[in-house]
Amino acid sequence: MSATVQRLAGTQPSLDPMIHLVAEDMLRVNDAIRNRMTSEIPLIPELAGHLIAGGGKRMRPMLTLASARLVGYSGSKHHGLAAAVEFIHTATLLHDDVVDGSDLRRGKRTANTIWGNPASVLVGDFLFSRSFELMVESGSLRALKILSNASAVIAEGEVNQLTAARRVDLAEDRYLEIINAKTAALFAAACRIAAVVADRPEAEETALDAYGRNLGIAFQLVDDAIDYTSDAGTMGKDAGDDFREGKMTLPVILAYARGDAEQRAFWKDAVEGRRDSDEDFAQAIGLVQSSHSVADTMARARHYGQQAIDAIAPFPAGAAKDAMIEAVEFAVARAY
Amino acid sequence: MSATVQRLAGTQPSLDPMIHLVAEDMLRVNDAIRNRMTSEIPLIPELAGHLIAGGGKRMRPMLTLASARLVGYSGSKHHGLAAAVEFIHTATLLHDDVVDGSDLRRGKRTANTIWGNPASVLVGDFLFSRSFELMVESGSLRALKILSNASAVIAEGEVNQLTAARRVDLAEDRYLEIINAKTAALFAAACRIAAVVADRPEAEETALDAYGRNLGIAFQLVDDAIDYTSDAGTMGKDAGDDFREGKMTLPVILAYARGDAEQRAFWKDAVEGRRDSDEDFAQAIGLVQSSHSVADTMARARHYGQQAIDAIAPFPAGAAKDAMIEAVEFAVARAY
Repeated sequence: MSATVQRLAGTQPSLDPMIHLVAEDMLRVNDAIRNRMTSEIPLIPELAGHLIAGGGKRMRPMLTLASARLVGYSGSKHHGLAAAVEFIHTATLLHDDVVDGSDLRRGKRTANTIWGNPASVLVGDFLFSRSFELMVESGSLRALKILSNASAVIAEGEVNQLTAARRVDLAEDRYLEIINAKTAALFAAACRIAAVVADRPEAEETALDAYGRNLGIAFQLVDDAIDYTSDAGTMGKDAGDDFREGKMTLPVILAYARGDAEQRAFWKDAVEGRRDSDEDFAQAIGLVQSSHSVADTMARARHYGQQAIDAIAPFPAGAAKDAMIEAVEFAVARAY
Repeated sequence: MSATVQRLAGTQPSLDPMIHLVAEDMLRVNDAIRNRMTSEIPLIPELAGHLIAGGGKRMRPMLTLASARLVGYSGSKHHGLAAAVEFIHTATLLHDDVVDGSDLRRGKRTANTIWGNPASVLVGDFLFSRSFELMVESGSLRALKILSNASAVIAEGEVNQLTAARRVDLAEDRYLEIINAKTAALFAAACRIAAVVADRPEAEETALDAYGRNLGIAFQLVDDAIDYTSDAGTMGKDAGDDFREGKMTLPVILAYARGDAEQRAFWKDAVEGRRDSDEDFAQAIGLVQSSHSVADTMARARHYGQQAIDAIAPFPAGAAKDAMIEAVEFAVARAY
């Protein structure tokens, strides 16, 4: 009887209620983002704007704003903090693309492809620093502590992932540890700080942290699954990107663990960079399907999604809670 | 009658008085550095330790500690802040070496050469985040504001330098702007935060800021000069590194401005990467000498050094003031 199955047949869950809920607040956040992206060095707003203006759902700041609604916050400290969260995320993406040597993100050329790695590293550093300036202005030392800790955890997760890269025998536990740090920590912090600025009891902080963390994991796992579905083009992500980069993701971990010797050899070759053709990808899709690895990755995602929904159960009913529940349903329904 | 010329003939200025002054406090700073470098991911302390343990004078945290003495601070908030300053500096060096593609630093292989660019980028991010955690723990929002602003200014300066790279006609003003941001801003912030945690009047903050800023510029200019002196090996820096990397520094700016057409063509070739042999470097040394560019770079450095010394004139006499004056004299005397 999960919330996911209560939905009436035929209605697709959507992010629209959340987008609608925070629309007013998001204007303030966008102002803060625009103001803090500026610099006398033209390359900075140019490069940062490429990523910040270039689409993306602004999921993380949206979660800060929605969480603030959920706890009934009526101040304005969360606008700058939400912008800071987006800056941390953007800085991370810039550095990620350098680290992974990626050419494309959200269907556009990556900043490092256009302006080079050095510029991407340095503008990332600039955005990191600006994010801390924004946090300092919020005046909340506790929010600062939560977000600076999340930043350190993200960097730690990235290094962990780097040392795990190209290792086909990565354990599911270790992988969960990595995405917990790389992705879920910022989702958790984004939600939690809303309770902090609203000066709510610790139980609400913890509940929002759990909501964000589980939603973050669910999001990442669905992203992993989408990469191995053939109609992914419409999802804002190209199918096969992870495969061609030899990325270890949950579908690969499951397919490898469940495979016979020959299949394991195939995955080892793929992860170590020796299989990246269209035929190889077609074969990979076949293997993740026959081993139920994509379906089970989605099942894992629904499990975390359900935990996210249950985490906010104690909050009063209302538009904020409905929107946050539907955001989870949207996240886990994306692959279908 | 500058302080620099008051020194008795035969005594070389030294950093020792400052090192002695802050020795006790530095033990606390080193504890904080060691504690915050740890991580469950072994690569992080390994890579960070390579740079942090690997020599370096810890000039910046030393300045925080000495400035705290100067203003009579008796608390302990500055230990964590001094460690944060060193982390910002270390993160910057890690990213700098990636951006410049450098192989050697302080005579040792750079981290990016040993562990690769991705690891250097990510561990730099980790140290940045940890530096903010340390700052948050100090509990001083004003110190946080000063240091997060300095971080943004540094990154901005780096991008500015990047866009100026390989341009032989860089103006002295623009170069000063760059080193003001890249180097002097952190020196200034390192000194200023001591007055902030000690809750001293704004005039003292401003004075310490000016001391640090001018000392930082002097330091950088002397570094620039040392690169074009043949006995630089003993100074912890190899002569010719800047030249071989085609770096624009003040000696090059002056020699280019003062050169004839043929000499300008030589510098253009050098800066654009077409001259990096030992013979080319010998020719460069000849040109900077004959145009007095190294001597005048040193004269500029002494000018800023004198401003640094005058900035702290209003503070009471004592061991802290003496040590801070001698540190400036040491900085500008290094090339001789």
